[in-house]
Amino acid sequence: MTFFKDNPVCNLFKIDFPVISGGMVWASGARLAAAVSNAGGLGLIGAGSMKPELLEEHIDKAFKATKHPFGVNIPLMIGHSKDHIDICIEKKVQVVFTAAGNPALYTQKLKDAGITVAHVVPNAKLALKAQNSGCDAVVAEGTEAGGHNGKDGLTSLVLWPSVADKVKIPLIAAGGIGTGRAMAAAFALGASGVQIGTRFAVSTESTAHQNYKDACVKADGGSVRIFNTAHMPIRALLNPYVNEYIKKECAGESIESLLSFRGKGRTKTGIFEGDIEDGEMDAGQVCELINEVLPVKEIMNRLIEQFFVAKNL
Amino acid sequence: MTFFKDNPVCNLFKIDFPVISGGMVWASGARLAAAVSNAGGLGLIGAGSMKPELLEEHIDKAFKATKHPFGVNIPLMIGHSKDHIDICIEKKVQVVFTAAGNPALYTQKLKDAGITVAHVVPNAKLALKAQNSGCDAVVAEGTEAGGHNGKDGLTSLVLWPSVADKVKIPLIAAGGIGTGRAMAAAFALGASGVQIGTRFAVSTESTAHQNYKDACVKADGGSVRIFNTAHMPIRALLNPYVNEYIKKECAGESIESLLSFRGKGRTKTGIFEGDIEDGEMDAGQVCELINEVLPVKEIMNRLIEQFFVAKNL
Repeated sequence: MTFFKDNPVCNLFKIDFPVISGGMVWASGARLAAAVSNAGGLGLIGAGSMKPELLEEHIDKAFKATKHPFGVNIPLMIGHSKDHIDICIEKKVQVVFTAAGNPALYTQKLKDAGITVAHVVPNAKLALKAQNSGCDAVVAEGTEAGGHNGKDGLTSLVLWPSVADKVKIPLIAAGGIGTGRAMAAAFALGASGVQIGTRFAVSTESTAHQNYKDACVKADGGSVRIFNTAHMPIRALLNPYVNEYIKKECAGESIESLLSFRGKGRTKTGIFEGDIEDGEMDAGQVCELINEVLPVKEIMNRLIEQFFVAKNL
Repeated sequence: MTFFKDNPVCNLFKIDFPVISGGMVWASGARLAAAVSNAGGLGLIGAGSMKPELLEEHIDKAFKATKHPFGVNIPLMIGHSKDHIDICIEKKVQVVFTAAGNPALYTQKLKDAGITVAHVVPNAKLALKAQNSGCDAVVAEGTEAGGHNGKDGLTSLVLWPSVADKVKIPLIAAGGIGTGRAMAAAFALGASGVQIGTRFAVSTESTAHQNYKDACVKADGGSVRIFNTAHMPIRALLNPYVNEYIKKECAGESIESLLSFRGKGRTKTGIFEGDIEDGEMDAGQVCELINEVLPVKEIMNRLIEQFFVAKNL
């Protein structure tokens, strides 16, 4: 694969393909991360749904399951983020992706420990902030993405080139990518790597429940919607729970009342336990293009093959 | 430009570049359409804001202003659409793009008159319907686009490949395209042509008011939002009018009350008369990437040049 020989994302993370798996609650544990790294990409353990001791366990497992670099994705706005950062340093994880918070908070600390750092952003202004905070790369994630979303609602098609024009560090494109065609589109728009969430959540190695995977396969893009718009937008599969949430939103209910209705553990109920009625099944719009559960290796092979076909069109 | 020699969109419309200007209310009259056709693309007169006699006038003007093919865009859900169709047949317009309605309604009639027909759709199901109705091409328009939007909220990145996989007629990509990079992305995702709205609305030859053009140049993508979500989604620049509308929506006001608040002539007030406070300024998310008003010829030159650069990346 001489094409990626000079690719800045491959060189930064010491990987064969500039393909990173997203940090997804209840789906991206050590098994998925190691599979992605073993397939030539960069696998991330999603710390978002993990208590510190569970993250330690997954990091240990990943070190055993792959000799290739892997990373940890840490959402900064949740309670355990400081502990997560310390664990990554202690365990000598090679790469950390931070998200949903201030990139100035831990980037220097991580870099001082020799860790390569990327930060996830929803707009160009925050991309510049990530660059100025010393991040090695920036992930620009469009509104197509599953789970928590930026309030701007910027789509990948518009966000990626806007960020590419403004930053000098490598741009990793995220949001709506599940095929090599979309990867080629991302490169045309100025990215030099991609981060893929939902497509890997719907893989054999993902810890998401089979019901969740089946629901993603069945869904079209129109049934993966943004809700909780006013507080912090979330993209998930439409189901009785999300429909009820949206109904309450439209009726003008207060944020407090909405959050109390959401309660705790909704994503666990949906993604991990497979309750497709009452759980929250965070997923991206790319469900439109996902037609089967596949092993990670097969996803990666198709992705790279389609990428080259699309590039030669 | 041998690259486009075998391009199906160029061959279908007998044009040099597979670039079509969108039919935009109050912006795309004969002057803009002729300029786009003279620059090697296919210019469309937007009939949406025109009474039948005004459309006749614009068609006559366009025939005088260009020797190249041009077309008319006709939204089918508005009152004058039947008259608009008859005028296009009578005046021997070469191309008609229909939108916002049933493609089975007039396609055969237009084709019997020797007119090439394309239909604009927001999802793959309607793309198949357009193909089955005998359309020569389909325009798949993502939620990035300005003005009326589909209810699915499908973004271009996900919509285009989904349609490309399902139809055999040429796919024209629309929604979020203002640069050659995005055009290259569209091609990677399976399109063989592009339709561009807002970028051409912010051209010298557009009949939109200077205040509207300036507002688009000033706006970032996060300030071009969808409203009227429950009835028929519209994407427009945030201003006091749209903010008030969204506030009423969030408070759960009825559709009747909302439409009465919108009243008649809001797009004329905003786009044509330049009232940036009280008017409705329909525009696409691509405002994020539009930094100046340019002549059509210059927009086309940059587009094609960037397209080839992005393809060779």
